[in-house]
Amino acid sequence: MSDCSVTFHPQEVRVKIRKGATLLDAALAAHITINNLCGGDGICGRCKMIVTKGEVTGEVTGKLTREEIKRGAVLACMAVVQTDLEVEVPPETLAKEKFTADREAVRFRGMKEIGEFWQKFTPAPLVSKVFIELPTPELANNTADHQRLCEAIRKKVGEPSTQMGLKIIRVLPEILRRGGYKVTATVGLRREISEVMDIEGGNTADRNFFIVVDIGTTTIVAHLLDAVKLKTLDAKACFNSQGMYGREVTGRIITAEKKGTEEFQKLLVSDINQLIRGLAEENGVSLTNITAAVCAGNTIMGHFLLGLPTENIRRFPYVAASVAPPPLRAAEVGIEINPRGLLYSLPGISGWVGSDLTAGILATGLYKHSGISLLVDIGTNGEIVVGNSDWMVSCSASTGPALEGASVVCGMRAESGAIEKVYVQEGKIKYQTIGDVKPRGICGSGLIDLLSVLLKEGIIDRSGLIKENAPGHIETTDGISRFILVEPEAAYQNKAIYITESEIENIITAKGAVFAAMKILLERLDLSFKDLEHFYIAGAFGNYINIDSAVTIGLIPNLSKEKVSFVGNTSIEGAKLAALYQEAFYDLEKIRENTTYYDLMGAEDYVEEFQKALFLPHTDIQLFQEVS
Amino acid sequence: MSDCSVTFHPQEVRVKIRKGATLLDAALAAHITINNLCGGDGICGRCKMIVTKGEVTGEVTGKLTREEIKRGAVLACMAVVQTDLEVEVPPETLAKEKFTADREAVRFRGMKEIGEFWQKFTPAPLVSKVFIELPTPELANNTADHQRLCEAIRKKVGEPSTQMGLKIIRVLPEILRRGGYKVTATVGLRREISEVMDIEGGNTADRNFFIVVDIGTTTIVAHLLDAVKLKTLDAKACFNSQGMYGREVTGRIITAEKKGTEEFQKLLVSDINQLIRGLAEENGVSLTNITAAVCAGNTIMGHFLLGLPTENIRRFPYVAASVAPPPLRAAEVGIEINPRGLLYSLPGISGWVGSDLTAGILATGLYKHSGISLLVDIGTNGEIVVGNSDWMVSCSASTGPALEGASVVCGMRAESGAIEKVYVQEGKIKYQTIGDVKPRGICGSGLIDLLSVLLKEGIIDRSGLIKENAPGHIETTDGISRFILVEPEAAYQNKAIYITESEIENIITAKGAVFAAMKILLERLDLSFKDLEHFYIAGAFGNYINIDSAVTIGLIPNLSKEKVSFVGNTSIEGAKLAALYQEAFYDLEKIRENTTYYDLMGAEDYVEEFQKALFLPHTDIQLFQEVS
Repeated sequence: MSDCSVTFHPQEVRVKIRKGATLLDAALAAHITINNLCGGDGICGRCKMIVTKGEVTGEVTGKLTREEIKRGAVLACMAVVQTDLEVEVPPETLAKEKFTADREAVRFRGMKEIGEFWQKFTPAPLVSKVFIELPTPELANNTADHQRLCEAIRKKVGEPSTQMGLKIIRVLPEILRRGGYKVTATVGLRREISEVMDIEGGNTADRNFFIVVDIGTTTIVAHLLDAVKLKTLDAKACFNSQGMYGREVTGRIITAEKKGTEEFQKLLVSDINQLIRGLAEENGVSLTNITAAVCAGNTIMGHFLLGLPTENIRRFPYVAASVAPPPLRAAEVGIEINPRGLLYSLPGISGWVGSDLTAGILATGLYKHSGISLLVDIGTNGEIVVGNSDWMVSCSASTGPALEGASVVCGMRAESGAIEKVYVQEGKIKYQTIGDVKPRGICGSGLIDLLSVLLKEGIIDRSGLIKENAPGHIETTDGISRFILVEPEAAYQNKAIYITESEIENIITAKGAVFAAMKILLERLDLSFKDLEHFYIAGAFGNYINIDSAVTIGLIPNLSKEKVSFVGNTSIEGAKLAALYQEAFYDLEKIRENTTYYDLMGAEDYVEEFQKALFLPHTDIQLFQEVS
Repeated sequence: MSDCSVTFHPQEVRVKIRKGATLLDAALAAHITINNLCGGDGICGRCKMIVTKGEVTGEVTGKLTREEIKRGAVLACMAVVQTDLEVEVPPETLAKEKFTADREAVRFRGMKEIGEFWQKFTPAPLVSKVFIELPTPELANNTADHQRLCEAIRKKVGEPSTQMGLKIIRVLPEILRRGGYKVTATVGLRREISEVMDIEGGNTADRNFFIVVDIGTTTIVAHLLDAVKLKTLDAKACFNSQGMYGREVTGRIITAEKKGTEEFQKLLVSDINQLIRGLAEENGVSLTNITAAVCAGNTIMGHFLLGLPTENIRRFPYVAASVAPPPLRAAEVGIEINPRGLLYSLPGISGWVGSDLTAGILATGLYKHSGISLLVDIGTNGEIVVGNSDWMVSCSASTGPALEGASVVCGMRAESGAIEKVYVQEGKIKYQTIGDVKPRGICGSGLIDLLSVLLKEGIIDRSGLIKENAPGHIETTDGISRFILVEPEAAYQNKAIYITESEIENIITAKGAVFAAMKILLERLDLSFKDLEHFYIAGAFGNYINIDSAVTIGLIPNLSKEKVSFVGNTSIEGAKLAALYQEAFYDLEKIRENTTYYDLMGAEDYVEEFQKALFLPHTDIQLFQEVS
């Protein structure tokens, strides 16, 4: 197949690409990072480019207006290269402002009693800094430097066994003598053994920071933790750059199988490193003083981070390479913190139920309750656990990224300008944005509210279709109907904020998958929703969700209010507990061992149950009578 | 200072070297490895070269004949470069035949009862290979590969905790599937935790070998061990190439301080690698199947091996960087066995008492006896321990390499052609060589016998000087007297075997240092030789020594025969026990902790005692009355 030459402006980069490749392929080859949230499915409409010379083929898409098409606009992911091309990349197409503060940590809710629970324990961070004053050696006490220091650490910290790598032993004599035998040892937990990871002259024990990361398929959240003051200093989040290879993990596994996992690892590590750099710079923390990175996330992301093969996870019987990788030198995978800093990958349960869920079990304390609880953590996959202090069973359902604000044109993460609340006041549909600024888009909680309002106001029917002659501002272009929530003049940059019928369908699919999974799992355990003492809903779709709205659309069952808690991002919250309390870290391992994985892919009735849930709230409306 | 150009033939290598440097410096710069056993002191006479053009200065030495000097011969270590030079390197000057089989392992003596002691224990090698058949995963049992394997190992080996590095986890899924879930795991002990170091498809559990090395200042001995059959397959030894930087460790520490430890590490690693390669090739063992290198030796050699700084060991208060380094990946220091194989540096006691002595304490069982024993291990340093199962005190004395056959012109290691026994029969001095071949030189045991015979036959006096009109063949050249033991026609290559007065002095110095150290140490403990239940003499000076001869020259006290055992190379014997019995390995750590170091350099009466011991057998002849 012959090669075509594609030149991008204003980057002035030319690449050779085979005829038949997409313009997105060419942009990737040219290392031009563009907005592409849907993973090349022509859904998000954010990879707009203008072909000024040459010929491309490909379907016409509703994401572009007639005017745009006339001017040569195409979606890069759908435009097939046929000849040499000259291409203009509009500024809004370029990925930018990738990192936006996520103040979720500050506004965290629902975790209060858990925080108190852990406060009973003495904090014991996974990596700690210990200031030690050694007596100056003399003939009567001329123990070797290595053994003397380990003995002193043992006495001070009470660690029974301490190891030290050759690199540190080599420089130890000089650091000890230069520091006048007053040094700070950085001591990290590596399985049952503590490792003296680093030695500095003088007392630096007050400068010890961790990065705690929740690695989602769609969203990556990182918090900067002061491990001495036990405080969250700041938080940042970004979309996962792997999105360019597909919204769903399965697509990425298939691509990784062909291309190798390196590319996926590189993207993830680069995202995490940018979050770390941003957090460190803005908070005046030196990377050297970040001694640990603690990561929770779904198992596939965990595999990509470590460069582990993922292909067996998608093949029967879905075996992961490792669900509990050992602590590693973070530098071994390219994470840029202290060069000898440790990377802790928290333990998950199976290929499809990751450490985001075990962290959630830890954070909610579900594993300590005598009564039965259910925790559902909604991300691009929905992970569910049911159990108590005696037993736990988990499962996973594919939901897609709709509730994270991705794959919805006006969707966005829960950050400044996002509509997080939609409600009716005096017969009018109103909204509230994060930061009380002009709305820029809608985040997960806003979408749940919006669907609920649209249903209650008779704008959409129970299958999610916009009714004929529905009230409110409805537009139909190229056969696609959309409800305009915010008129251009009221919105940021005069861009109307709307939702289309197909986007509503995405959200219904997501909530249907989650609800069906919960129902089947409970049935398998001979339980029903009314047997639950607690119902925890966790996820990255916002800083709050309206429980009533979630019940209205059928995302969660209609339980009495006191049983239901929205617990936010329990993945990162649990990871933080594990980072600061070794007790909690060991609990995670116990949670892993005590939680069974139930595979829904093997459940014949799952598809049927899923179909039934593709209505608002459900085919069987009886289910949503209050079941307290 | 101006540079001179030195060209070596037949190597045809030209180097630039500053005027005033020695020819040995030039040869080192040219990477020409030459025989140089004395470390550049002009003693061994083995670095002979012929200057065919240009000018060198330097003392005339008795190591060269007048004829040789006329032909331009010089000792490279003593010839100072003054102009550009053309230099001929005679073939015998080039280092060669460096590796000679050392069958000591086979002929080992004195260790029998110890071997029996350990035979009561179940062998538990530091690294073992475990064949595992895993059930094929199914939906009801789809534990991740990593956890499944660790669980299986735990069940099979009973290891409570197993770790696995990222590199192995990465390839594990493929190896498991390719091997049909039948694999061999190589499991190594790293402190209290076991590490799965390697995974191979199929059953390779019968191929597991270790290299056990005794790293001496002068001599390096390596044994190849079958860790499955618990057998020593072969042994090799070589002189330590660091000898080119000095016979004594102190000189090497000083040089390392100036040049860095890298060069010393490189030389040691290269010596060990050559021994390993030789052993592996000759015994048909693949390097991949050598999974561990277990090293004992003096602390300074241990530091050089790991690239640890040594300078504080020679400075008050003589602090080592580490006397118990952790197990490392052998590749981290360049040792060429299985790329993931482990290097165990056995624990020593202080900067001047190394793991050669702890290994000796282990091998002799001294630490288990209720009665008090003394173990003296004679190498380039003499290390001594006195104690029992309750307490142990150790010290070290500098002896020099004379008793290892180095720094004596006709000295050699205990290998084929070495005179290992000298005795008087029918009024005539006779000798016996290893292998019953033509004599090539004298090893340590032969030298001890020789001195004893020379004294008894009235050839030398009690201060070691050759008597006037002494019987036997005495020659005096350039004022140096020598006793000819083997006439040229009876010797290998027609080279007479002799000993000079100054060499006798070296041997007396060595034995005097050892004896004085033993005496002072016992005195400090309010003990004398007669309080000892066992007296163990260990060392690399041969495969046997004649106890009577050792008493005659005053190397050891005159105890009743049943108390004295020659136990050979206990450093390597103890290292082998530690390699094959984890129990023994842990015992070494206890030995380290329970043994006090007594510093002779701080003992004011040591020099006085040493002076008294510079006679045959001693100034105070009373001491050598039998003291049973």
